[in-house]
Amino acid sequence: MDRRPIGVFDSGLGGLTVIREIKKVLPGEDIVYFGDTARLPYGNKSKETVTRFSKENVRFLLKFKVKLIVVACNTASSVSLPALARLFDVPVIGVIRPGVERALEVSDGSAVGVIGTRATISSDAYKRLLKRRIPEVKIISKPCPLFVPLVEEGWLDNNITLRIVSEYLGDLKKAGVKTLILGCTHYPLLKSAINKFMGKGVRLVDSAHETARTVKRVLKESSLLSDRTKSRSHRYFVTDEPANFKKVGEMFLGTRIGFIKKVNI
Amino acid sequence: MDRRPIGVFDSGLGGLTVIREIKKVLPGEDIVYFGDTARLPYGNKSKETVTRFSKENVRFLLKFKVKLIVVACNTASSVSLPALARLFDVPVIGVIRPGVERALEVSDGSAVGVIGTRATISSDAYKRLLKRRIPEVKIISKPCPLFVPLVEEGWLDNNITLRIVSEYLGDLKKAGVKTLILGCTHYPLLKSAINKFMGKGVRLVDSAHETARTVKRVLKESSLLSDRTKSRSHRYFVTDEPANFKKVGEMFLGTRIGFIKKVNI
Repeated sequence: MDRRPIGVFDSGLGGLTVIREIKKVLPGEDIVYFGDTARLPYGNKSKETVTRFSKENVRFLLKFKVKLIVVACNTASSVSLPALARLFDVPVIGVIRPGVERALEVSDGSAVGVIGTRATISSDAYKRLLKRRIPEVKIISKPCPLFVPLVEEGWLDNNITLRIVSEYLGDLKKAGVKTLILGCTHYPLLKSAINKFMGKGVRLVDSAHETARTVKRVLKESSLLSDRTKSRSHRYFVTDEPANFKKVGEMFLGTRIGFIKKVNI
Repeated sequence: MDRRPIGVFDSGLGGLTVIREIKKVLPGEDIVYFGDTARLPYGNKSKETVTRFSKENVRFLLKFKVKLIVVACNTASSVSLPALARLFDVPVIGVIRPGVERALEVSDGSAVGVIGTRATISSDAYKRLLKRRIPEVKIISKPCPLFVPLVEEGWLDNNITLRIVSEYLGDLKKAGVKTLILGCTHYPLLKSAINKFMGKGVRLVDSAHETARTVKRVLKESSLLSDRTKSRSHRYFVTDEPANFKKVGEMFLGTRIGFIKKVNI
């Protein structure tokens, strides 16, 4: 039994999809969220820089005596998880492994696609983990650098978005991909456009739900679950001005953001 | 006569277009360039955060005893120039005023368009300055947040880019814009696509050349010109890994980058 909060970080807003799922499966847990909005995006930056940022973010969250840390950002999970695990004592959970577990559950043995930022795809983190679990399956990965700016522009389903989706995903469709891992927390917002192009038979894997299940399992196994049935506080910290984060974040979360504060780290 | 270097900063690579022009008109000047590649882009961040970054960048450049600072970034010029001028003794030159001067030179009195990042356009920096100089002219501005990611993806002139250009610039064309200020150092790379859509009669204003002329004039007026006819050193500092900056930067510059170093500020 442990009433300390869970710490979650992302480069910006995307990680809120993970928060939404954690709140569903763990309604009694307090949460401290950190969004590095002044330095986003992470997806086009080097492994070294993203790892440095990730370490700083974890150090910030540790000030709140968090009992577990969720790296709710695919790029940071892809490139910095080993370094974080080495450096810090607290359990650290990324979004890659849960996404892979989910893909294995829904896959029928046909080709698996992975899409993400340039940094995530170059890291080969998904590919390596998938290869280890299903060595015989064909894996095709593709960086889609314009997807995040499209989501941020709010062009979720217009003709231009459909053209960009078909440009990026053409090879995956041709190769017969039937399971597609959305390896970036922004991409679920493009589900409708991606479905239209790939066809209804293709299963889209979004790691948020699976990550929340992993968090619950790890807390349980380590006897770190809170004994409360209702959480006391969800606090949000960001590095750029909070106004836009709050507005768009409430859309991501589907609930109001009560406590939000700008910090310099 | 003053042999100290000129300091130039940008959020990333775009400012190199200004360097290229400075080298042409001031071949005897040494240059220290700072590209904040770990925290880019600036264009979708708040005034407060961009101003904080700009101050840190200037402080870094002052370590090299620079005699003048060029803010080679439209976003930083739009939102932080007054703060920098208040804080620091060294002359600070932005790219907005030179762009406006150039627009006035080429304008025939018909509508003037201004495009840039969300932060640049919201700041109204171009609009205010244009209004003061030509109060009777119609000014139409439009943020084009997808242009920078398009340039970075290398899609300078394909069908998708043309569709996005027509989506963003449709209203400006309809309004009869004949002079279009490219209010972001990345946008000159989209000149061909923009020209195709707007038509050959439209003059595109790129502030790089005009900014370099302003630098020369200010140095001359303050007796700060170097007496050398050939520069001794051009040094480049970046906050993310230098490899990609060097590669793409040499394309922007048209020459080799000799000295480049990663720094944390």
